[in-house]
Amino acid sequence: MSKKADKPGQGSESTRPRDSRPEARLPKGLQDSAAQEIRATEAMLGTIKSVFELYGFEPLSTPAMEYTDALGKFLPDQDRPNAGVFSFQDDDDQWLSLRYDLTAPLARYFAENFQQLPKPFRRYQTGLVWRNEKPGPGRFRQFMQFDADTVGAPSFAADAELCMLAADTMEALGVPRGDYVVKVNSRKVLDGVMEAIGLQGEANASKRLIAFRAMDKLDRLGIDGVRDLLGPGRKDESGDFTKGALLTDDQIDAIVAVLKSTDFKSLGPILDQITMNSGGVPDEHGGLAHLPYEDALNEMIEQVERPVRLAGYGPDRICFDPSIVRGLEYYTGPVFETELTSTIKDERGQEIRLGSVMSGGRYDGLVERFTGERVPATGISVGVSRLLFGLQLLGKYKGDDVPGPVVVLVFDKDRLSDYQRMVQTLRDADIRAELYLGSSGMKAQMKYADKRGGPCVVLQGGDEKERDEVQIKDLKLGATLTAIEDRDEYLKKQAEAQFAVPEAELVAGVRKVLDRYKA
Amino acid sequence: MSKKADKPGQGSESTRPRDSRPEARLPKGLQDSAAQEIRATEAMLGTIKSVFELYGFEPLSTPAMEYTDALGKFLPDQDRPNAGVFSFQDDDDQWLSLRYDLTAPLARYFAENFQQLPKPFRRYQTGLVWRNEKPGPGRFRQFMQFDADTVGAPSFAADAELCMLAADTMEALGVPRGDYVVKVNSRKVLDGVMEAIGLQGEANASKRLIAFRAMDKLDRLGIDGVRDLLGPGRKDESGDFTKGALLTDDQIDAIVAVLKSTDFKSLGPILDQITMNSGGVPDEHGGLAHLPYEDALNEMIEQVERPVRLAGYGPDRICFDPSIVRGLEYYTGPVFETELTSTIKDERGQEIRLGSVMSGGRYDGLVERFTGERVPATGISVGVSRLLFGLQLLGKYKGDDVPGPVVVLVFDKDRLSDYQRMVQTLRDADIRAELYLGSSGMKAQMKYADKRGGPCVVLQGGDEKERDEVQIKDLKLGATLTAIEDRDEYLKKQAEAQFAVPEAELVAGVRKVLDRYKA
Repeated sequence: MSKKADKPGQGSESTRPRDSRPEARLPKGLQDSAAQEIRATEAMLGTIKSVFELYGFEPLSTPAMEYTDALGKFLPDQDRPNAGVFSFQDDDDQWLSLRYDLTAPLARYFAENFQQLPKPFRRYQTGLVWRNEKPGPGRFRQFMQFDADTVGAPSFAADAELCMLAADTMEALGVPRGDYVVKVNSRKVLDGVMEAIGLQGEANASKRLIAFRAMDKLDRLGIDGVRDLLGPGRKDESGDFTKGALLTDDQIDAIVAVLKSTDFKSLGPILDQITMNSGGVPDEHGGLAHLPYEDALNEMIEQVERPVRLAGYGPDRICFDPSIVRGLEYYTGPVFETELTSTIKDERGQEIRLGSVMSGGRYDGLVERFTGERVPATGISVGVSRLLFGLQLLGKYKGDDVPGPVVVLVFDKDRLSDYQRMVQTLRDADIRAELYLGSSGMKAQMKYADKRGGPCVVLQGGDEKERDEVQIKDLKLGATLTAIEDRDEYLKKQAEAQFAVPEAELVAGVRKVLDRYKA
Repeated sequence: MSKKADKPGQGSESTRPRDSRPEARLPKGLQDSAAQEIRATEAMLGTIKSVFELYGFEPLSTPAMEYTDALGKFLPDQDRPNAGVFSFQDDDDQWLSLRYDLTAPLARYFAENFQQLPKPFRRYQTGLVWRNEKPGPGRFRQFMQFDADTVGAPSFAADAELCMLAADTMEALGVPRGDYVVKVNSRKVLDGVMEAIGLQGEANASKRLIAFRAMDKLDRLGIDGVRDLLGPGRKDESGDFTKGALLTDDQIDAIVAVLKSTDFKSLGPILDQITMNSGGVPDEHGGLAHLPYEDALNEMIEQVERPVRLAGYGPDRICFDPSIVRGLEYYTGPVFETELTSTIKDERGQEIRLGSVMSGGRYDGLVERFTGERVPATGISVGVSRLLFGLQLLGKYKGDDVPGPVVVLVFDKDRLSDYQRMVQTLRDADIRAELYLGSSGMKAQMKYADKRGGPCVVLQGGDEKERDEVQIKDLKLGATLTAIEDRDEYLKKQAEAQFAVPEAELVAGVRKVLDRYKA
């Protein structure tokens, strides 16, 4: 029986001898998350949520799976139409897929509930998405996204708002002004640039694509690297050669001039000059009047740059960056990326390029798939793990703010009920506490308590019971004792680290230890 | 080309003419959730989490999918081994399945990380689970669970703790003492009961199964209904006949006597009497000494009942109910269910039987699948939707505590930036606000603001602009105006419902309206 013929639900069990056991193993490309990471993520998501709510977005939740045809397929990897998503067939033969982002399900939801929804429809959504891709370092098959979208808003004011939302979110997360920047560009302006240097039309599609990809790499390769990729091509450090766009020197100079511009106002004269140099772009009557980038530029200046500046966001927070291309997906207008700009170093002191932590853009075509009508929409998405990773390297959101429980040890197995009552007393006083529930001896119990990371243990042997006392042992202080050489100091610290209190004063005694480690 | 041959990712698109569009439809058995439900669920989960944390449980998160053989198959529906879970094959031919509960992944996680974990391992986990089952009313293919488990704890003190956890959780959620009860039983005691009436051994397995199922239905069918099911069988209201266990009258009387007992102490003498009546259960030497339920009863009395009572939980909160069977799954010891006992009525005044909202039990065999060693474990699971449904019928967790945003209307499209700045001013004052981002006129904008559920709108036309003023319109008060017949009263209310303030006092003006509706 071939593996291929195995039925789901039986797995390989049917071909395996009865006494062989399945291996306990996490599937490739997936992760478990322990307490600290979960706490950190939740705290970060809570902050993001509060900003999105302040902006008037409402939460929405859609299921993990959608009909495959409704989900569509907008992953970058267009070459393998069946790859990228996890799919399975329902009992009525319809294909279902796990969602690969939160935007495609939003388009389905908006189209399905069009009548009842307020328009524009503004929602935020947080949830897991899945990609059936080859896993690699830092590249997982399940990850979390946090999106905000405004559907049914033709005005770029909606895009301007998302840029301000990104800036406000960064500051709410504790990233100081100057240590982040939201970079904005327009896909339409980029198209206009290409037209201005004579790269319009289907015939130049592949050249445009290579040129966009090259521009997108500015921050990694620098101007010279981009020049190579716009021209004959580039050999990287490993010796691999990437074929270039084979543009003329004039075309390359023009794109480099564009890449050096820092706002849309200064871009206008640059593009005018380029257009003049290249003999201009003829209008439909063969004249020279038509400037293909003009409308797109004006839209960006009037509807994005101006309101953003008027609302008090300077170029230190939201800047216009002509190298922002945002992959090759479904974007149709403004695109934006948020970067952490302070130097971030990993544990080994290596500088880290984190890339964009919050990005998005306008996608006017996505709902049209269902309704046939163009529905203008724009959205932004937080890369949850990447952002948390960056914030943690900046010393924030460590998830270490909840101490482990106070552990009441089991000295005498016949007195479980007494110990349980002590736990109860602590919990009633709102102190995180638990009874040791294993069956090992005192040494293993102490080791257990250490692993749980609680502030102290409580124990009561026969002697203490007779005196109506409990022993309280401060685990952190206890761990420092062996390093103390001075005898008096040792005895003093030892007395602090382990002390007896009347059982009736259990709560006060434990509080004494808790107060030592209050943040 | 048959439907069956369709490839995932292409769906039916490949067989469809180019211009036909996919239908925007939610897959069957799945749900979208809007803002109110999401807010209510989050608030409820937050409360549950705080209690679980107080008890010393730590959060854990595992991925949505597991290798099918590692996940195992412990769904009630054992007749269809491939059904019940959503499965798909990875590119290396290994089968993956979406998790159907949070316990099977916990067993995998514990077995995989055995060396590093503190033992006992105590974790809580909240997450979605999926069942590939026929959907029905209130029966969905994706739902949320919230579990707490202690793995590696042989002592029933761990089970006692979960019963107290359930009681504390109910009270933390605002369910008054007396309006909930945690019902406890033991699978081992039930086995002893069966043995005491001569239903031991493989030969009686199917009779025991039917008898357990009958006992489980006590609260729905009453004692007479259970008697029928223990005997020849029962015809329900619809005329359907359910075959019974065909027990003797003595056996039925004995089970009914057991069902009428209310604690484990009183159960002892009842079982002794039954054992005597039935001629006793012979021990291995043919004597009469062996009482099969004795150890199980003592365990429950000493390790569950006693510590629970000593910790102050009376039978009004945690009671012993011999009819609790907990399905036919992997439980091996104590089992428990939590019920809301106050009369709950739906919107039409119909009384509702909600069933258990938080249940679990001991499962000592689950990790053994991987390790070959028996690992004692016990856990409890919250039925998130059902509990929320019950709490909402009790008037709690309605999710209506966040008002919609203040909407700044667009009177003059050329002044978007001015309006955006007003929004910014409100947000800076921590007031939830947004700019109207659609392209419709004033009437549609007012309708939009109404739908968003915000307290008021802000508008500024040319006249107001000239006077440096803004108009603020209270939407709730505005909606009550038409019902006012007295002219003076109308004018007074109208003046309250819509008023002008200097633009510099925008925040104070909006606050005036917000204060009217503060909870």
